[in-house]
Amino acid sequence: MSLLQGAARSLPRSLRAAGRQQYRPLRFPLSLSRSLSSTPSSPNSSNPALSFPCLDAQDAKSARLSARSLQSGPEPSYTTGQHERFHSDEPLLLDWGGVLPQFEVAYETWGELNKDRSNAILLQTGLSASSHAHSTAANPKPGWWEKFIGPGKPLDTDKYFVICTNVIGGCYGSTGPSSIDLDGKHYATRFPILTIEDMVRAQFRLLDHLKISKLSAAVGSSMGGMQSLAAGVLFPERVGKIVSISGCARSHPYSIAMRHTQRQVLMMDPNWARGYYYDSIPPHSGMKLAREIATVTYRSGPEWEKRFGRKRADPSKQPALCPDFLIETYLDHAGEKFCLEYDPNSLLYISKAMDLFDLGLSHQLTMKEQRAKNQAKIASGAVGQDANNTSCSLTLPDQPYQEQPSAATPSAQQPETGTETIELESPPKDLVAGLAPLKDHQVLVIGVASDILFPAWQQREIAETLKLAGNKKVEHIELGEDLSLFGHDTFLLDLKNIGGAVQNFLD
Amino acid sequence: MSLLQGAARSLPRSLRAAGRQQYRPLRFPLSLSRSLSSTPSSPNSSNPALSFPCLDAQDAKSARLSARSLQSGPEPSYTTGQHERFHSDEPLLLDWGGVLPQFEVAYETWGELNKDRSNAILLQTGLSASSHAHSTAANPKPGWWEKFIGPGKPLDTDKYFVICTNVIGGCYGSTGPSSIDLDGKHYATRFPILTIEDMVRAQFRLLDHLKISKLSAAVGSSMGGMQSLAAGVLFPERVGKIVSISGCARSHPYSIAMRHTQRQVLMMDPNWARGYYYDSIPPHSGMKLAREIATVTYRSGPEWEKRFGRKRADPSKQPALCPDFLIETYLDHAGEKFCLEYDPNSLLYISKAMDLFDLGLSHQLTMKEQRAKNQAKIASGAVGQDANNTSCSLTLPDQPYQEQPSAATPSAQQPETGTETIELESPPKDLVAGLAPLKDHQVLVIGVASDILFPAWQQREIAETLKLAGNKKVEHIELGEDLSLFGHDTFLLDLKNIGGAVQNFLD
Repeated sequence: MSLLQGAARSLPRSLRAAGRQQYRPLRFPLSLSRSLSSTPSSPNSSNPALSFPCLDAQDAKSARLSARSLQSGPEPSYTTGQHERFHSDEPLLLDWGGVLPQFEVAYETWGELNKDRSNAILLQTGLSASSHAHSTAANPKPGWWEKFIGPGKPLDTDKYFVICTNVIGGCYGSTGPSSIDLDGKHYATRFPILTIEDMVRAQFRLLDHLKISKLSAAVGSSMGGMQSLAAGVLFPERVGKIVSISGCARSHPYSIAMRHTQRQVLMMDPNWARGYYYDSIPPHSGMKLAREIATVTYRSGPEWEKRFGRKRADPSKQPALCPDFLIETYLDHAGEKFCLEYDPNSLLYISKAMDLFDLGLSHQLTMKEQRAKNQAKIASGAVGQDANNTSCSLTLPDQPYQEQPSAATPSAQQPETGTETIELESPPKDLVAGLAPLKDHQVLVIGVASDILFPAWQQREIAETLKLAGNKKVEHIELGEDLSLFGHDTFLLDLKNIGGAVQNFLD
Repeated sequence: MSLLQGAARSLPRSLRAAGRQQYRPLRFPLSLSRSLSSTPSSPNSSNPALSFPCLDAQDAKSARLSARSLQSGPEPSYTTGQHERFHSDEPLLLDWGGVLPQFEVAYETWGELNKDRSNAILLQTGLSASSHAHSTAANPKPGWWEKFIGPGKPLDTDKYFVICTNVIGGCYGSTGPSSIDLDGKHYATRFPILTIEDMVRAQFRLLDHLKISKLSAAVGSSMGGMQSLAAGVLFPERVGKIVSISGCARSHPYSIAMRHTQRQVLMMDPNWARGYYYDSIPPHSGMKLAREIATVTYRSGPEWEKRFGRKRADPSKQPALCPDFLIETYLDHAGEKFCLEYDPNSLLYISKAMDLFDLGLSHQLTMKEQRAKNQAKIASGAVGQDANNTSCSLTLPDQPYQEQPSAATPSAQQPETGTETIELESPPKDLVAGLAPLKDHQVLVIGVASDILFPAWQQREIAETLKLAGNKKVEHIELGEDLSLFGHDTFLLDLKNIGGAVQNFLD
């Protein structure tokens, strides 16, 4: 679809005049856009042409955004409100060789840090959540864990000093692709590949700044449940208890596949323009689609069966190829609500970081070696230049994916005589070795049976792996379908079962 | 994204010269497209710009398709090879008021019809499968159920005359959106909304033509498993045994959601051009994305865990936002393979027909009433005109989706104090009444525990509903995860468990 970009070059100069950036998508006034949505009619067709109100709405939004962007200037602004800000002039070396010459971490806190600075809880977020977990004096808007934080609540602010950060790579104030690079331009897709561990290292730089040498606990859900484990593995001496809710110790291919489709639909939006959209219309259609796919993975089928069933938005109308079932209008709304509230490039980098997550020992050692090599280079200032040779060079294999020779892997194209039982290994030794740094920590692991994105076997894997590593202080809770049908989103909703378990564990 | 279409109008006439159709997407020579894929570089950026080989490949394909379309003319051709053809000059009234003034059904057969024409099995297909279930003399290419059909096989051609049709709405020879309407132009999205029952009625027109008054059995998988039930409900006297594999009696919101995202990504491809792409470049990017999402729903997580794990296509390379995990290149390949082999509009109409499927009695009665009304009109030739007033008029509600007031439906935006147990009804009475016409049929229902698209509870629902309707001849088989981890695709792969059960049941 990025042929589109060719169009900009071929347009008469008059239409290109406003262009300030190489990959500028096209803009047209609303009137022109509208005129295109009339359906072709033929007096001799057997049936009328279908209409497409969902596409008309997209066109109108593009036109509105174009007008807004021309009026107010190009700077996008993603924010969830007031927060504290930590600025570091010390560069941050990233796992894959990228470097942030300086960076910011935006954060919020609740409760009071005690005298010996020992009562801090680091709350770690999911992909698109911000530091605004709870309302503050500066920002009274309810946070995403509003009922879980406060005096007497699961994260008890009478006892604890709760810190929640915006991850680097994101767009809520911490350094990310929408931030300005040294050359005065947005990073865009010049932002380096990021890992979960990179995000955690940035968080610990903030803890250094706050003079917190050891956390009372690291608590995280979803991507935050990856981070709480990573925090313990990277800084075992600096973390007390660990809570990992609906997270995992390594991403599995099904989650990668789900995130892959989201990235692809976003990148195929011509407005994405390979990441260089900051001076123009953001890829709102691609973002909307990505969020709709994500929303499917956040909930569960049985819940929707009860909630939406087969209800149509307006049963008096003919069915349409645009959304008409209630479940469709719900997804449409979820996508619509999100598509301008989060930076598309942040979605790409953070979702990729989740895919890359693997606490297995061999991966840890590879990263360690890579970091040592790059650490040496960072002194000489050669990191960026060197990375030029490697991070740009990915090419798809000449031969597309080939079925691996294995008795247990029949492909749909090659029907097999019968299926064979696939035995999944119990926690691999490599992962047991990788989690060894956590063998003396108190760890609470929570999973939800109806979660399809981080399925319950992944939290079972964390718990079993820790036990095999010698940890005798692991608690594992799995909420069955009798307790929650809310899938991955359960951690946002279930104050009783999730909140209660966290409270018991921390006290 | 369809703002794009505006570009075509604004282009210099020279570039538009080849345009023959209103919604013609843009075409550019390869060289121009290539020049766009160079990444913006800045000597002062902290890190190198990422490259996007996956988008370069899309651009190159668009350019190739453009060149091909200019050379060979605009007619797309979707085929799986030689087949028989039944042409009807009798119009076909569709459930939602559309009409096909004439239509064709392409089909293939295996075995011999016996003297009293009583040994026919109608094999009903999934969404994208063709009539080519098995090789024929005219087309020796192996079919999608090659090992399931033949002498001594589950569909035993020593005993049965097996017929497999291409569904109407599809693109393999039966009338569909790519067919030519009365005005000499492709139907495109002037094709009327279609239902599973409409497809079945067209199949029974073929049976009339073949002078088969009663089928020995209707056998179907996936969408075919909807059709085999629908065949029995619509024509209870004309169907002997019924086999429904990995199908359902009504689509549930999770499957609708999955298909919704596929339709949306396809429709957002500017090349889709609201369905009017037949004289131009097909929306290959949107089709590729749709197929990738579909592929995720066809398989299961544990199978991929075993098969792909966390392997990367080339571990020596840096990670990229384009596909680099093996699971990603697999999905990429699956999408790539399919994107030019199936008509995008057919995908939209057929996937919508699946969403609309509901064998509940009240829905059946509504359709019956609607058909009676339209049947009266069809004589007066007023159907098409009348439909103009209704089928174009869908509008999205002014207020986007609102959470329904219900104690059991907390939303992610409004965290609740606790979750409440959601009790799903046992088969609703309306569905029991709807399946009553099947109460005396021998029915085999097969489900697969690892299927996420047509989850096993849906086949349990069919079986329980039939029993509640008074049927004492229902057999229900559910393949546990110990027998198959292949998810929805199991019916294509598992000759032993699926094929064996079908064979036992038919004999």
